[in-house]
Amino acid sequence: MQSFELDKTDILKIKQALEGEEHDLLLLLEDYHASEIAIIFESLPLESQKRIINLLPIDLASEIISEMNPEAHPEELLIELEPERRQEIVEELDYDDAADIISQMDKDDQHELLEDLDKEDASNIRNLLTYHEDTAGGLMNTQVIKVNSQMSKKQAIDQIIIQSEEIEEFYTIYVVDSDDVLMGIVSLKDIIKSKANATIADLLNEDFVYVKADVDQEEVADLISQYNLTSIPVVDANMKLLGRVTFDDVIDVLEQESTEDMLKISGVSEDEELSGNWVEAVKSRLPWLILNLGTAFLASSVIRYFEPTMTKIVVLAGYMTIIAGMGGNAATQALAVTVRRITLSDLTDNQAYKTVLKELTVGLINGAVNGLIVFAFAYFYDDNLLLGLVIFIAMTGNLLIAGVTGAGIPLLLKRVGIDPAIASSIIITTFTDVFGFLLLLGLASKLLL
Amino acid sequence: MQSFELDKTDILKIKQALEGEEHDLLLLLEDYHASEIAIIFESLPLESQKRIINLLPIDLASEIISEMNPEAHPEELLIELEPERRQEIVEELDYDDAADIISQMDKDDQHELLEDLDKEDASNIRNLLTYHEDTAGGLMNTQVIKVNSQMSKKQAIDQIIIQSEEIEEFYTIYVVDSDDVLMGIVSLKDIIKSKANATIADLLNEDFVYVKADVDQEEVADLISQYNLTSIPVVDANMKLLGRVTFDDVIDVLEQESTEDMLKISGVSEDEELSGNWVEAVKSRLPWLILNLGTAFLASSVIRYFEPTMTKIVVLAGYMTIIAGMGGNAATQALAVTVRRITLSDLTDNQAYKTVLKELTVGLINGAVNGLIVFAFAYFYDDNLLLGLVIFIAMTGNLLIAGVTGAGIPLLLKRVGIDPAIASSIIITTFTDVFGFLLLLGLASKLLL
Repeated sequence: MQSFELDKTDILKIKQALEGEEHDLLLLLEDYHASEIAIIFESLPLESQKRIINLLPIDLASEIISEMNPEAHPEELLIELEPERRQEIVEELDYDDAADIISQMDKDDQHELLEDLDKEDASNIRNLLTYHEDTAGGLMNTQVIKVNSQMSKKQAIDQIIIQSEEIEEFYTIYVVDSDDVLMGIVSLKDIIKSKANATIADLLNEDFVYVKADVDQEEVADLISQYNLTSIPVVDANMKLLGRVTFDDVIDVLEQESTEDMLKISGVSEDEELSGNWVEAVKSRLPWLILNLGTAFLASSVIRYFEPTMTKIVVLAGYMTIIAGMGGNAATQALAVTVRRITLSDLTDNQAYKTVLKELTVGLINGAVNGLIVFAFAYFYDDNLLLGLVIFIAMTGNLLIAGVTGAGIPLLLKRVGIDPAIASSIIITTFTDVFGFLLLLGLASKLLL
Repeated sequence: MQSFELDKTDILKIKQALEGEEHDLLLLLEDYHASEIAIIFESLPLESQKRIINLLPIDLASEIISEMNPEAHPEELLIELEPERRQEIVEELDYDDAADIISQMDKDDQHELLEDLDKEDASNIRNLLTYHEDTAGGLMNTQVIKVNSQMSKKQAIDQIIIQSEEIEEFYTIYVVDSDDVLMGIVSLKDIIKSKANATIADLLNEDFVYVKADVDQEEVADLISQYNLTSIPVVDANMKLLGRVTFDDVIDVLEQESTEDMLKISGVSEDEELSGNWVEAVKSRLPWLILNLGTAFLASSVIRYFEPTMTKIVVLAGYMTIIAGMGGNAATQALAVTVRRITLSDLTDNQAYKTVLKELTVGLINGAVNGLIVFAFAYFYDDNLLLGLVIFIAMTGNLLIAGVTGAGIPLLLKRVGIDPAIASSIIITTFTDVFGFLLLLGLASKLLL
């Protein structure tokens, strides 16, 4: 398979085939990987998705459903299927994927679906549903390859072959004692390379990374990324092995966290679905805009306070918007760099202090350079040296404040345990608006009147 | 090892130990994983890093250097070491890691270092240095596990055991013909499960994903993420196997791309290092701020044009900043959602059209709600119904424009092949500033004078 990009011709072809014979549709679908069909589903109505899922063999149908983006709502597709077909598909899913999808259904649908399942499957899925979806427990799959430390090389290989019937991909073999307590890990390579009379206990690697089930998914992702792990074992409070989280789950978590950061600093609620409809978008953004409206009134009250000054020097209105706008943009720059840095690594107090100092310096320099440009404009165009000086000071001061608040506020929030990304541009620009107006109009009223 | 978080006590302990006996320092360092020491290095001066690297066994020293964040400049540390020590460490590195680090040195240092190396190592690293660092070739490691399709089960297992001496982790075994042309993949599990008289050709899986060496790293990351691969083979134009890119390289690429997106839409150059110094930050941000200054002059020229109106209705100055600020924030919201969505998946024309329509609707509703609030203020506080109406229309119109440009401009850029994330908030807020002032002041001059 060559590196592959879906385009609209793929979707068109499938839409046409949906109008025609089943046989031709099946033939066409053979060209696609399950994850590609899952992407194509995002452009198809529920009715067409249902038709394709009913047509395909169970293993492929279930793989497509497990690959569907949560925002494409695979749970709605499942609910639409005939109970028998649905049951077959869910039983083919990995437990963690099944639990993720079922957790999005309402309680009645969950109950109905789980009732129909094989008892063991249902109990495993119910168990996974008890973990919070943002934790190691919520991410993990309970199907792992595990061997007992007392096994011989031969016994272990036999066990691995049997267990691997159920698990398509495995990277690490977990070693447990008779109570299922995790003792260490071993690789298939080491087992094969070992002498014929070796036991698993001889090969055991006890220096391994693990997580408790209630650990936050972001921390799980950081560990997998930091230690370059393909999978990480999940244990309960007594070190009993519960399951594993694999690198591919973590790639999804990392993308999700980056999306949330980017949305939050732009004043969008983190749970707005990127492809959601307008109702959702209004719900997610209107509260932030109304908050912004409150802060904008605050800034405009500064202007009202200086109305007498403005009436006498009308040209200030034009400069006002320049200084506030520049402050807002400089603050957004400092904010983006700082929030992203905090997300990727924890900063020591000393590093935090140096970061604020750096942003102060950057603000001072960028403020002075831009201040000089505006000074020149005021001097040559408006022919007013003193006005130019006032504007220069206001610009420099405002960009300095922009740097300090843009870096300082997220660092402060992190310090007191609040998510630094909620220091959105909306909050930060309040400072630069209010401070910019105060500096410009305050100085103007003292020096120019 | 329990899930682990470094804190300042770790750094303090190591700083103290650096003052004391070598023996105690070594004892303390034993508690840390290479990737942890790599993080601690970010808080240590070059001199201390050098001391630790010289003290530790070669394999650990080289692992620490390969784990160091590029922003912590491992190449500078390498240059500081004695030539012999440096050579030992580089020879212990994976070729791709060595090439990544060496590519950051200037040409003279590169030359000096490569001269000292074993000929084969030097030639492999030189070869990797010819690929652009943002491509599959730049990311790949040339050390892979590969077997010939003609081999028997026993021959293949022997080969894998020999080759795996050099390669600590492998996930997929590549199958090549006698010209090193990639024919397919096979898993160690399948080889072990096969009958004793099987050959590799019997077990070959020909349905696999691969990339050419010049493919962009972002596409490599998307493929690994979409198909849940642990590694992807890299081939030349004749399908000759060159190397492999592994999932852990891709996790780094994904984080880097997310960082770049977040910086770009905030008006920061994508190559600003998050932990860079103030000189770098000024260089990266000042051009954007000067661009913004230009657009701010444009917006302020609208205000100057309407100076007569402003002189007569001074209260407009306060409302002006509210309407422009709200427009800017609403545009930033639409921008963040749209840019992130484009990054995560390609949109069809139909989806793009629907996205703009959705943002138009969201802008209209959010504009009307906020417009009503400001209308009420103008009516009750300033006691001016007509002014309230003008403000209501200006707010609604400006947030509508904010939605359309915030979503439309990045989609348009993507369409013509330009990176949509350069549609930074700086560009977008120009529209909302200019349009907001035009609407408010234009309507006021027609209706209120």
